[in-house]
Amino acid sequence: MKPFMNADFLLSTETARALYRNVAANAPIIDYHCHVSPKEIYEDKHFEDLFDIWLSGDHYKWRIMRSNGVEERYITGDAPRREKFQKFAEALPKAIGNPMYHWCHLELKNYFGYEGILSGDTAEEVWQLAGEVLSRPDMGARGIIEKSNVQFVGTTDDPLDSLEWHQKLMADDTFSATVAPTFRPDKALNMDKPGFADYIAALGELTGIQIRTVADVKAALSLRMDHFAACGCKASDHGLDYMVYSPLPEADVDAILARALAGEAVTLAEAEGYKTALLCFCGAEYARRGWVMQLHYNCLRNPNSRMLAALGPDTGFDCIGPAPSRDALAGLLDALYSTDSLPKTIIYSLDAGDNAFIDTLIGAFQGTEAAGKLQHGSAWWFNDNKTGMQEQLTSLANLSLLGNFVGMLTDSRSFLSYTRHEYFRRILCDLIGRWVENGEYPADMGALSTIVRDICCDNAIRYFGLE
Amino acid sequence: MKPFMNADFLLSTETARALYRNVAANAPIIDYHCHVSPKEIYEDKHFEDLFDIWLSGDHYKWRIMRSNGVEERYITGDAPRREKFQKFAEALPKAIGNPMYHWCHLELKNYFGYEGILSGDTAEEVWQLAGEVLSRPDMGARGIIEKSNVQFVGTTDDPLDSLEWHQKLMADDTFSATVAPTFRPDKALNMDKPGFADYIAALGELTGIQIRTVADVKAALSLRMDHFAACGCKASDHGLDYMVYSPLPEADVDAILARALAGEAVTLAEAEGYKTALLCFCGAEYARRGWVMQLHYNCLRNPNSRMLAALGPDTGFDCIGPAPSRDALAGLLDALYSTDSLPKTIIYSLDAGDNAFIDTLIGAFQGTEAAGKLQHGSAWWFNDNKTGMQEQLTSLANLSLLGNFVGMLTDSRSFLSYTRHEYFRRILCDLIGRWVENGEYPADMGALSTIVRDICCDNAIRYFGLE
Amino acid sequence: MKPFMNADFLLSTETARALYRNVAANAPIIDYHCHVSPKEIYEDKHFEDLFDIWLSGDHYKWRIMRSNGVEERYITGDAPRREKFQKFAEALPKAIGNPMYHWCHLELKNYFGYEGILSGDTAEEVWQLAGEVLSRPDMGARGIIEKSNVQFVGTTDDPLDSLEWHQKLMADDTFSATVAPTFRPDKALNMDKPGFADYIAALGELTGIQIRTVADVKAALSLRMDHFAACGCKASDHGLDYMVYSPLPEADVDAILARALAGEAVTLAEAEGYKTALLCFCGAEYARRGWVMQLHYNCLRNPNSRMLAALGPDTGFDCIGPAPSRDALAGLLDALYSTDSLPKTIIYSLDAGDNAFIDTLIGAFQGTEAAGKLQHGSAWWFNDNKTGMQEQLTSLANLSLLGNFVGMLTDSRSFLSYTRHEYFRRILCDLIGRWVENGEYPADMGALSTIVRDICCDNAIRYFGLE
Repeated sequence: MKPFMNADFLLSTETARALYRNVAANAPIIDYHCHVSPKEIYEDKHFEDLFDIWLSGDHYKWRIMRSNGVEERYITGDAPRREKFQKFAEALPKAIGNPMYHWCHLELKNYFGYEGILSGDTAEEVWQLAGEVLSRPDMGARGIIEKSNVQFVGTTDDPLDSLEWHQKLMADDTFSATVAPTFRPDKALNMDKPGFADYIAALGELTGIQIRTVADVKAALSLRMDHFAACGCKASDHGLDYMVYSPLPEADVDAILARALAGEAVTLAEAEGYKTALLCFCGAEYARRGWVMQLHYNCLRNPNSRMLAALGPDTGFDCIGPAPSRDALAGLLDALYSTDSLPKTIIYSLDAGDNAFIDTLIGAFQGTEAAGKLQHGSAWWFNDNKTGMQEQLTSLANLSLLGNFVGMLTDSRSFLSYTRHEYFRRILCDLIGRWVENGEYPADMGALSTIVRDICCDNAIRYFGLE
Repeated sequence: MKPFMNADFLLSTETARALYRNVAANAPIIDYHCHVSPKEIYEDKHFEDLFDIWLSGDHYKWRIMRSNGVEERYITGDAPRREKFQKFAEALPKAIGNPMYHWCHLELKNYFGYEGILSGDTAEEVWQLAGEVLSRPDMGARGIIEKSNVQFVGTTDDPLDSLEWHQKLMADDTFSATVAPTFRPDKALNMDKPGFADYIAALGELTGIQIRTVADVKAALSLRMDHFAACGCKASDHGLDYMVYSPLPEADVDAILARALAGEAVTLAEAEGYKTALLCFCGAEYARRGWVMQLHYNCLRNPNSRMLAALGPDTGFDCIGPAPSRDALAGLLDALYSTDSLPKTIIYSLDAGDNAFIDTLIGAFQGTEAAGKLQHGSAWWFNDNKTGMQEQLTSLANLSLLGNFVGMLTDSRSFLSYTRHEYFRRILCDLIGRWVENGEYPADMGALSTIVRDICCDNAIRYFGLE
Repeated sequence: MKPFMNADFLLSTETARALYRNVAANAPIIDYHCHVSPKEIYEDKHFEDLFDIWLSGDHYKWRIMRSNGVEERYITGDAPRREKFQKFAEALPKAIGNPMYHWCHLELKNYFGYEGILSGDTAEEVWQLAGEVLSRPDMGARGIIEKSNVQFVGTTDDPLDSLEWHQKLMADDTFSATVAPTFRPDKALNMDKPGFADYIAALGELTGIQIRTVADVKAALSLRMDHFAACGCKASDHGLDYMVYSPLPEADVDAILARALAGEAVTLAEAEGYKTALLCFCGAEYARRGWVMQLHYNCLRNPNSRMLAALGPDTGFDCIGPAPSRDALAGLLDALYSTDSLPKTIIYSLDAGDNAFIDTLIGAFQGTEAAGKLQHGSAWWFNDNKTGMQEQLTSLANLSLLGNFVGMLTDSRSFLSYTRHEYFRRILCDLIGRWVENGEYPADMGALSTIVRDICCDNAIRYFGLE
């Protein structure tokens, strides 16, 4: 029996252990998509206690507690911090087989030096230890990033963002990691969601463009892209409940936009026509700038309307989506490819049932701008667990070239989540090690080391142009 | 090589073997959803031969024979019983990898003491042995239930059922297991199926309510729920081809009902509107009573219309369904949650492609009435096999708290199917044992024993309120 | 560690090794569905170099190169052959986990005696060796087929084909394998695709029938089926983007056909009505003739319209399809079964998410004409890899009788692809060996050998009537 989460955690073969120790463990982290705050990095935010860094904003942990029947006051309510932590610690042992169990213990071991097991019984000792460690000067946002061997942090930013903190970080040569913004214009596309007209008004004001037509929106977004590019932006991101591709004549889209800006209702089909126009424009702009386009889709947001009203969005109530997206995704890629304006693109679906579809679709739109110009993104969100990663890697290997994969990202709001790269790397090395020791790939440690290092960091460095 | 189905069957690690032997093997069975006859239990039905208990009503076995090219006269026709059994025994060796192979041999070993292999060659010796054993006094329905260590049997019952056999069993203190009805009002909801008007008329007659409106249907069903509750009912069940959630104004639904009761045709959309109203009402009633709501969906019933005409429904011709149900399931849960009337709910889809969706959706509607108030039901029907159970357990573990799972049920019409709990428990212990021996969970046998016993029986006892 | 692809490749247990060596390795190959040219067989085509036999027409290899960022001139363009091969050899090491890696090395070992690893570094030595070997007299199409132990080759042929090469092969007793045509009338059904009217005109001309009505199309196809039958045809094949079953009155379909033949546009629904009529007719004809009907569906053809315009179809740009097909497939089978005209049928979906659906659906339409009259075809195209085959075999075993499976086919355009049968057989023996050594099936080598040989060849021989 292997000890619980020791140095060889998840590494079931000697080849896997060698690849992990000699290559993966020391490769720098390129966290090209996450949700940490550049302000908190710049200001080197420190954390009061384990609640502050673990429970104050992590909706994964909130779901664990809700699945254990915990009252909301211990989750997002006004219960004392220590009591909230107790409820979480009591729920955790039931999370057998859940990535949260591993994430927590990796973080406790790597950042706090805790080698025990977190449960209701040990909550107090963990709380005390973590509080002590978090009070150290090197346990602020900067210290955690640096000791995690992170070279690149790609935040997620609204086009209206001033990027002042990115600019300050660029000017600060005391910090080793590069922090770059990612252009995420969801609010400029989501005509069907509340606040659209106000958002467009603010976009017009910021850019000095009086926005009346779709061309005006495009011009304004293009100006913001210029600003993002000046701040080191290499990538964009679109979060879509489902993929859309329903082109309409430009005049129609202008009329739809005018009504939406006037506060009138638009139909879903009209909003989809507008989104299609903007997605095509954005894709072409990204291609022109050499940026990467990320597409995240297939999420059913806020199915629980009562809790949405009570707590707002992004509080742990989303789920995998029901909507068909395959035709639309194929249509969008074709439209961009046909006009020679398809950027480097990474596709993430929240439904793992789309894995093989995506892996075959990207094969139809590759190009010469990069080896693996079209990518199937790492197992996302609800799929970000051992089996989900194994399935994404296996499907990608079956149907594309795994050796060109740009690899892992945290997609996290927490500075402790860099352990997820370790988790991914162990799973990657284990998968490759199994293949090798099963006679499915030559035991050529040089070639294997290249593949592993490429997937850990070098492919992403090349793909995003971070050399 | 492990011997064929010995004591360590499916238990690949020492941890798994210890958990199975010390915890799972002896845990009582809570078979909270099945289709056995309470009358046969009360009367302690005895079985003439292996045909009687194995082949007379088991559509799984009929499918095996049909897949082997066997003529229907040996399946549901007039061939002699022994010849039918011969045809089944000849087909079975081709069922390599099929759960039927394991179910049969577990039943032969556990109930008949047969240690050999059933095939065409051994059919006669098995037939003779089984006939001899079945003639023993303790091999009636009651004896089988008691020697199987079954503490609770949840049958499946129509609202019109008098529950006389349940009442007799309640009054009979010579039988150790509790037998409780489950409220399954499908016929009151299936406006689109033949016999609806007659069914509603019978419901009205039984309850003394003249049914003209949806409110009348609700009142009548509520009276029947009272009767079920008095007979120990703790749960309901809905069998739906696909999930529906299409609310209509009450007046519209009343008009639709009036036309249906008058024998006029209704559209599918109208029937769905009526079903939605009833599902919402039923859910709220279950919540009020503390009952569990079970939702079984995604079945394509009777795709073979010629065999439906020849043999009727439930004769082994159903298959996994094609219809999208995700939006409707989310909509129904949201409607109930928004009105504070969502009961404890167990969701079963016949399409394993829905596993992860269900596991994420239940996370959005948990509550404090139970740890794991919303449950993803055990791998159902066509998924009730080793890989299906591994996938359901793994997905549930990845996305929820496996430790709160209410576990296995037979869903069977046969008194010999309690071996399926053994099959499930071996698979559960093996999965957990692998995780532990792979260093993915601490080797704390106390904590592990609690988890295993909880999933085997204690979670269900708490969840259904059977203490 | 097992050496790279040695004699025990993929065989992880002693039982698997014994079954492979003693049974599977020597069983003849019945390649009942492929795309090789009967003319090339008759003429014993020889190949100039590895480009000729590997890269000139294999869109799998083209995808590998495109996924590595290779320019199209090295793929389908005018670059020198040797340079194209170099690009492929350089991409291959990145195909870790991809079946192409195994196919290439199995072919290099089995046909060229090459025991090394193909990469950019070894490309020259492989090129030289292969060129030398291909120049040998026994390395033409006939020699490869014979040394591969192929007994039956089922080509894929248009109804308009004269079958002259099949006739010549029938008359040639110097060649040991039987080469039979397969009737694939896609062009007669694809009213919605370009060239339909011309195709029907040619069909009329060839058969001497003036085609005006659907009955005329049927009569003409029936004549061509007579011709195919006279040339040894035992099977048909339909390639459908998605399954259709939308019956229309015959008069309506006649009117639709008349408009299509006049060059007028028809709607998609009209084309589907016509296809439905033809599918039902063809199915009944196949049943009458004792032929096998193969249904291949769920492909999104040519999503990249620019590359379609540049290179034409079947150039490596297809992907898994988005369209729902479950209702239509069930409807078609029901329509044929209801009229007692359902032929032996093999169903292949390009979406592995349909596996369990297909495995349950076939169980609803079995018959006595064959053990396993309805079949779920071997993992097709994008699923033709280790995990895809394991999943298809496991799902089939769970839900039907694996022992009746007709097994593998290459579906290939290349004469070197017979190694895919070896790949399949290793995976099959490994799966069965694991079950046996895990105590899930008796270690009865006689029974196991029968199952393995049946799946390797004997089931197909019986099913297609090749005795």
